[in-house]
Amino acid sequence: RARWTEHDLRAVDTARLLAADAVQNTGNGHPGTAMSLAPVAYLLYQNVMRHDPSDPAWLGRDRFVLSCGHSSLTQYVQLYLSGYGLGLKDLKALRTWGSLTPGHPEVHHTAGVEITTGPLGSGLASAVGMAMAQRRQRGLLDPDAAPGTSPFDHHVWVLASDGDIMEGVASEASSLAGHQELGNLTVVYDANQISIEDDTDISFSEDVAKRYEAYGWEVVDVDWRRSDDPAGTADYTEDVDALLGALQRSRRSRTRPTLVRLHTVIAWPAPNARGTGKSHGSALGAAEVAATKELLGFDPAKSFQVERDVLARAREVRARGKAAHKAWDRTYAAWRRSEPERAALLDRLVDGRLPDGFDRALPVFDPDPKGLATRAASGKVLGALAAGLPELWGGSADLAESNNTTMAGEASFIPKGKQTREWKGGPYGRTLHFGIRENAMGMILNGIALEGLTRPYGGTFLVFSDYMRPAVRLAAIQQLPVTFVWTHDSVGLGEDGPTHQPIEHLASLRAMPGLDVVRPADANETAAAWAEVLRRGRTAGIALSRQNLPVVDRTEHASVAGVAKGAYVLVDASSGAPDVIIIATGSEVSLALEARRRLEASGVATRVVSMPCREWFEEQPRAYQNKVLPPAVRARVSVEAGVAMGWHDLVGDAGRCVSIEHFGASADAQTIFREFGFTPEKVVRAAKDSL
Amino acid sequence: RARWTEHDLRAVDTARLLAADAVQNTGNGHPGTAMSLAPVAYLLYQNVMRHDPSDPAWLGRDRFVLSCGHSSLTQYVQLYLSGYGLGLKDLKALRTWGSLTPGHPEVHHTAGVEITTGPLGSGLASAVGMAMAQRRQRGLLDPDAAPGTSPFDHHVWVLASDGDIMEGVASEASSLAGHQELGNLTVVYDANQISIEDDTDISFSEDVAKRYEAYGWEVVDVDWRRSDDPAGTADYTEDVDALLGALQRSRRSRTRPTLVRLHTVIAWPAPNARGTGKSHGSALGAAEVAATKELLGFDPAKSFQVERDVLARAREVRARGKAAHKAWDRTYAAWRRSEPERAALLDRLVDGRLPDGFDRALPVFDPDPKGLATRAASGKVLGALAAGLPELWGGSADLAESNNTTMAGEASFIPKGKQTREWKGGPYGRTLHFGIRENAMGMILNGIALEGLTRPYGGTFLVFSDYMRPAVRLAAIQQLPVTFVWTHDSVGLGEDGPTHQPIEHLASLRAMPGLDVVRPADANETAAAWAEVLRRGRTAGIALSRQNLPVVDRTEHASVAGVAKGAYVLVDASSGAPDVIIIATGSEVSLALEARRRLEASGVATRVVSMPCREWFEEQPRAYQNKVLPPAVRARVSVEAGVAMGWHDLVGDAGRCVSIEHFGASADAQTIFREFGFTPEKVVRAAKDSL
Repeated sequence: RARWTEHDLRAVDTARLLAADAVQNTGNGHPGTAMSLAPVAYLLYQNVMRHDPSDPAWLGRDRFVLSCGHSSLTQYVQLYLSGYGLGLKDLKALRTWGSLTPGHPEVHHTAGVEITTGPLGSGLASAVGMAMAQRRQRGLLDPDAAPGTSPFDHHVWVLASDGDIMEGVASEASSLAGHQELGNLTVVYDANQISIEDDTDISFSEDVAKRYEAYGWEVVDVDWRRSDDPAGTADYTEDVDALLGALQRSRRSRTRPTLVRLHTVIAWPAPNARGTGKSHGSALGAAEVAATKELLGFDPAKSFQVERDVLARAREVRARGKAAHKAWDRTYAAWRRSEPERAALLDRLVDGRLPDGFDRALPVFDPDPKGLATRAASGKVLGALAAGLPELWGGSADLAESNNTTMAGEASFIPKGKQTREWKGGPYGRTLHFGIRENAMGMILNGIALEGLTRPYGGTFLVFSDYMRPAVRLAAIQQLPVTFVWTHDSVGLGEDGPTHQPIEHLASLRAMPGLDVVRPADANETAAAWAEVLRRGRTAGIALSRQNLPVVDRTEHASVAGVAKGAYVLVDASSGAPDVIIIATGSEVSLALEARRRLEASGVATRVVSMPCREWFEEQPRAYQNKVLPPAVRARVSVEAGVAMGWHDLVGDAGRCVSIEHFGASADAQTIFREFGFTPEKVVRAAKDSL
Repeated sequence: RARWTEHDLRAVDTARLLAADAVQNTGNGHPGTAMSLAPVAYLLYQNVMRHDPSDPAWLGRDRFVLSCGHSSLTQYVQLYLSGYGLGLKDLKALRTWGSLTPGHPEVHHTAGVEITTGPLGSGLASAVGMAMAQRRQRGLLDPDAAPGTSPFDHHVWVLASDGDIMEGVASEASSLAGHQELGNLTVVYDANQISIEDDTDISFSEDVAKRYEAYGWEVVDVDWRRSDDPAGTADYTEDVDALLGALQRSRRSRTRPTLVRLHTVIAWPAPNARGTGKSHGSALGAAEVAATKELLGFDPAKSFQVERDVLARAREVRARGKAAHKAWDRTYAAWRRSEPERAALLDRLVDGRLPDGFDRALPVFDPDPKGLATRAASGKVLGALAAGLPELWGGSADLAESNNTTMAGEASFIPKGKQTREWKGGPYGRTLHFGIRENAMGMILNGIALEGLTRPYGGTFLVFSDYMRPAVRLAAIQQLPVTFVWTHDSVGLGEDGPTHQPIEHLASLRAMPGLDVVRPADANETAAAWAEVLRRGRTAGIALSRQNLPVVDRTEHASVAGVAKGAYVLVDASSGAPDVIIIATGSEVSLALEARRRLEASGVATRVVSMPCREWFEEQPRAYQNKVLPPAVRARVSVEAGVAMGWHDLVGDAGRCVSIEHFGASADAQTIFREFGFTPEKVVRAAKDSL
């Protein structure tokens, strides 16, 4: 039982009205859900979650994910009430330039916000990743502790809306959460039956409880509404104790995630707005806000009213949080004493430091004209890094063997009972199996990174980066150290044809701010690319070939050290003064080298620049950029098996782009490259045209 | 009962071996599923589907969707056996350049293929669109016929795999299919428990039957395997009659889609390959193919064996198909006689012709400095077109009011029992409600367009084009006349902040081949854009503003006729000889006009080019392009509230781009535009820099 005092009840009503006032004051926003979820959020922050408002980075804290990010006030108001540092002035500055209270919650911006949410389904899906990461972290640091006794045991709490539940990414991630038996995850599903098109019955009549049972979740119904009418009835009862019971039971569940389906009335108790679609995304209007205040016994003429006693009561959570933290500190200190090596590892992980000389483990590949696919090289790199970087882990969306994402010999991350003849492992394993669920994979990787201690990666075909684009964007917005492994990175994948051949993907991913797109040219560039991606700790995608690529002879060509600068002169004109520069990436670098041989033979001094990462190159000092691409050399050719978009700014008005501007075809790679003009002849011609 | 003869059984085994041979012959492909699904596909083509191999475009045909498109041989072999024109030479040319048998089925390429599939989940989701379109088409043409008696009644049959069922887009679409009570849809789910990572138990343990029951589907289990082992047992029995019974019952179902969960053993009966992940995507090897032939009583030394009697037996379906077609012709002729007006409409729809002068209905907006949002203009355009274009219909992914996608006064497309207080309608309604399921919306729009008679559109925020990108790409690959309505098309949407503000989206969508991206500058350009999109009948996305935009005075500026050419001189330099050209799109055109006023005032002769669609402009003759952008005028500025990527090729080395290269922020639109440099001052400075 919650044993709420009158002050607690008043604090809940205060929270509702702060939400209504904040939206009314700004003139726009989402008041309805923040009003009706006020008791739920207050319960979580005051009675359920383990957290310490004075230390939002406490390792032992539970995680809170507001998947219905549009209802950001649900969280902002609790951060204010429980003392995370937000003040009334911040609530008054809702959704204005530079405020701590933007339209949707933003991690690294507002203390207490764990994740940037807003795009529906994304928070819930990333929460699955948090829950998975918690288990992996425990496995790295304290695997033998009894359940619930480790300082690394914590719980992930999610508030989700009808919209979250409708999005496919939530389906994918929820199916995986059940499969992974994530007892450390609880989703409170606010079944208020209202979305922007009003009553969700217009498009959504599935049985959500049954669906989640099918995923293997524990499902609990808590019905405050007791009617099918989204506007509720006089019977509406915010039975906080029933909800608390469900949440407490869910924390004790060890082998199933829990969905608490809570039937609410949006904007409760606003007399006219409640239960309406309008209350979802618009200010209620001054009259309705006043009427609600009157109903709740507040002064209808005043805004942002917070009574001193009420705030004091709410802020008592700080003392409880500190006490919990202190108790945890003792367990944690005991763990540190008994596990000095693991404690040292933890310190390194908390700092986000790589071990000194981690890159000495990288394989070096001998020159080889036949060579190997960069995806294969990537697999070897991951295997070589495995021992030194326990924080690195990942897997694939059902393409492990194609993406080469499995570190050789590492166990699968999987409940014991879910092992198969091909894959052995356990709950603390390292190899992730996402199934054919690319978007959930991306969101889960984000959640893993947000947990803060490990470095996840995940693979699929480059063309299916489309399926996970919402997750990639959220990784980039949050600047998470997630690495996407995208293999089969051009029409060179061959016979699978146009639906599987990326054409526009390199360009469309480069268009995204905050994402490093890396396309290594051979096996050694692949190793250097991985090292640099790990060093930078930014969001990155590595594009890798399906087909074999020659391993460039580094005694005759520049060292791969240049990869870290994004672009470098792989081989200069024999004269030292190039007439033309060929800029190539990935599988087209060897084509550029062959074209150079022919151009040099015909007397054209030709430099080849390998440009594995445009974003890294753009960061270099202008002097370096001008050294690689001297402004005086205006004859330039870009060669990349994708659309030319974006290359014109590097090759300039005099330049030429060897590219593909249409969808691919089903045939072997050699034929496709020939038919689509990725030939030395074509590059030579482009170079001569450019001169 | 199927009453298969020995010849039928032999035809099924022939089909299995043709699949194994074709992959073995090419050296790569997906043999396993084609082998085990051979009896299923043969049953569908011979005993279940209404189709006429001599007329693949027959209006009365059932539709077949191979959602597991990698198993293209499942379909190619049946197209051969039932006489659609594919020959053994085509099977031998599997996955080679120019063949009729590419890696994945391609519509408009191989007779009998209704849809391009391959990306998992997409076929199933588009099939939901086909089933919806069938109902809408019936409503337009023959609404009063008793169920099952109209020439426009047909059924949609889908083969789907584990991978299809895992993808979120299938979840979204299946939830909608149950909601829409699509009795005309049957999905045979090939539960072979094998994907590329072998036994799907590694990532997929949900109860699929229960999940589909939760969506409101009829679920039937047909278990040929009777064991949990994906490799099956000696008990494996291809009980075709049990399957046929389930399919026949599903055809009779009026109010629920049906999922037949069929438990199979992949690659059955290959003695070693069956039940393995390897058989999914690799050639079985000569020895295994030979062993399978021996097992089935075929000559292990021969390939592509088809006995004359067996082929003759399979080809009898042609006569049955012709008879069914003839019977249908009589019903159809009777309908034409009794419904001459609807018959005339049908003829127009079959031809894909717009009514003469359809664009006379377009609204004309008066000049207005305050103006209106282009999304609002778009809503008015749709309303104005509604009466003249019954084939045009659409809706939104729960953003109807924000996207302005509802044609005023039109009924919702919804089962009678699913109406809500806000939305009234019926099964033949026109306004679609997709819920918060953008990717399913896109796939469903594709399915609607593939049905062939109507023109669908669907709306969401531009930023959420990310969620539907897989569908957009498939629309573009298939060149479907689908229109995506993407509103809130820049940081100008304001307070919702970075998760909701598109930055890279215009560029990333323009990177996609086959997609027209249209961004009108004001209300009248919006009307002209819609008209041109409808005229062209290509895949298009219209980007529309949330915020009000001035309605340009066309007495002082060029006519909107130029929209159809993609770009036009909106207003020239007062001198007639521009020093600088400002190229702008959408909401930035009015900014360009203001900058021009200031530039002209300071003596800089300035032309403003409005460029609503780069793809249309690129199609124009070089002479027109040079007239709009004279090569001699090298001082150029592009202005678009998105990344600059792609603009350099138009503004050239001397040009400047006014753009935004980072994520947005939460504030009102005016503040954001000012802070991010979308101001007349900035454009003026860029123009002067460029001079």
